[in-house]
Amino acid sequence: MASVVLGIDIGGTNIEYGLITKEGENLYSSFLKTESIESIEELAQNLKEEISPILKKEKYKLHGIGIGAPKGNYLTGCIEFAANLPWKGVVEINPIFEEVFGVATILTNDANAAAYGEKMYGVAKEMKNFMVITLGTGIGTGFFMNGQLQHGSHGNAGEMGHITIDPLGRECGCGRLGCLERYASATGIALSAREKIEFYKGSSSLSKIAPSDITAKNITIAAKKGDPLALELFDDTSKILGKALANITTVLDLEAFVFAGGLAKAKRIITEPTKRYMDENLMEDFKSKVQIVCSSLLAENSAIFGAAALYWNEEKGNS
Amino acid sequence: MASVVLGIDIGGTNIEYGLITKEGENLYSSFLKTESIESIEELAQNLKEEISPILKKEKYKLHGIGIGAPKGNYLTGCIEFAANLPWKGVVEINPIFEEVFGVATILTNDANAAAYGEKMYGVAKEMKNFMVITLGTGIGTGFFMNGQLQHGSHGNAGEMGHITIDPLGRECGCGRLGCLERYASATGIALSAREKIEFYKGSSSLSKIAPSDITAKNITIAAKKGDPLALELFDDTSKILGKALANITTVLDLEAFVFAGGLAKAKRIITEPTKRYMDENLMEDFKSKVQIVCSSLLAENSAIFGAAALYWNEEKGNS
Repeated sequence: MASVVLGIDIGGTNIEYGLITKEGENLYSSFLKTESIESIEELAQNLKEEISPILKKEKYKLHGIGIGAPKGNYLTGCIEFAANLPWKGVVEINPIFEEVFGVATILTNDANAAAYGEKMYGVAKEMKNFMVITLGTGIGTGFFMNGQLQHGSHGNAGEMGHITIDPLGRECGCGRLGCLERYASATGIALSAREKIEFYKGSSSLSKIAPSDITAKNITIAAKKGDPLALELFDDTSKILGKALANITTVLDLEAFVFAGGLAKAKRIITEPTKRYMDENLMEDFKSKVQIVCSSLLAENSAIFGAAALYWNEEKGNS
Repeated sequence: MASVVLGIDIGGTNIEYGLITKEGENLYSSFLKTESIESIEELAQNLKEEISPILKKEKYKLHGIGIGAPKGNYLTGCIEFAANLPWKGVVEINPIFEEVFGVATILTNDANAAAYGEKMYGVAKEMKNFMVITLGTGIGTGFFMNGQLQHGSHGNAGEMGHITIDPLGRECGCGRLGCLERYASATGIALSAREKIEFYKGSSSLSKIAPSDITAKNITIAAKKGDPLALELFDDTSKILGKALANITTVLDLEAFVFAGGLAKAKRIITEPTKRYMDENLMEDFKSKVQIVCSSLLAENSAIFGAAALYWNEEKGNS
């Protein structure tokens, strides 16, 4: 009888889920459309109806539930004011899932779930001090220190996307100016492209796209083909990110930064210049000691591994 | 028979030490001049000759030794390239003390020792996530997350004094430009005074001092009397520090920053504006949640409590 954890990744578009063994095997996975779900009660009920026949038929034992969600707070078990989800305000998660499924449920934010995933199944298995940085619509970060995921004193640790890098810079959804995620995310690099494209007419393949339609994906594809604007955009982005990571390293002394999310799909085109700029901005004591690597879980459905790892890892920590 | 730990604080001028009980009582303390000590072997021998008769006479049991030193590395047990100590390069500490005294010895850097001191005996007793910031010649930081002091992956965590706040700014001893400690330390505020004094001739009591002789102490005394330049200098310094602490909070989500060192003697003159600037620069989620307080161990010889706490606290963690 296989023991499984229901790993759930709640995103703005899809809610992906899977039945994951402790060894990281995905025995069943599927998804729901986020907008179709009116409440957490409905989500838990729908998932139960979906999962129960499979558990019964395959004789799987459901051990627990791990959930990753934007603004998911580990300490309170609530999703708190998530801008891109249909459920507004503070939304209780854990007690509802625990009542419907009868097993323990752990919630954290999506970046923390990604960090758990890397620790259990990914590139960070052997690491005690590392940070996973998801370079997507925004920047999410989750980090382990001394072998433990750090939640901070109010469950909000790891909001590195909102460190200020330019007090007079781009407007951010958080209401402030010049946050790192407005530059060094998939959204940020696209914004930079729109600023620069007019100077590259004819010399960049990106100039064939309407500026407002340029995405990180377009830029990544162009960069892989050697497009000069695309490469310059990655260099600019890496410079900003590298300087920020030098400051983080100076405080945290990590072994590695693990890049995940859309922009990480550029692989070496982003990791190598970021590493170079980071090292240029580090004190001698720290130089060359910190790796920058890409997630080994970039493939489809990786987020549900992270959500499941959240539960498995926690259980391991408690044993 | 009282159980004691020998707490040693190695500084550039003095080596202070004390016999400290687990409850934080200092049963005996004294100091040596740092420049008079040619090697660590000599230091250990001198301390043993000093301490042994007291242990014997008072029937104290020496339980262990805790040492705080600039660039003291917890993971290696060595002082590594400390600029302001007479012993150069990488200097082994733990095995030498363990051989001479026959008890376990723990070393860490002076800021980490200060953090242990606050955790065991100071304002941070009930806190799990906090950072002690010593605002002295430079800036030292030691921080607890989830109840554990964080050493990082190479024993270098907490070098916040060297985050870059102005890439074209003041030269730093580390070889780079614009490090935080060149602005927001006792040295930093004195440098700022020298830059501004000419605009305040006659209107500031500090203008009676030769610019090169102005110290943080002069500025603090003047500020307490309402001197406009001194108050402006504290405001400038607090603005720089507050912005940096907002970025740190965004990543670490701490309960409190604890100020120690020379500049902390200004108390509210530095904590209040720093708190205000920090809150102004924080996202809504974090605003008003983080305290800034002064160390309750600012009195003389506090550092040896920190060094002793290092040992007692570690032992507690292992039990």
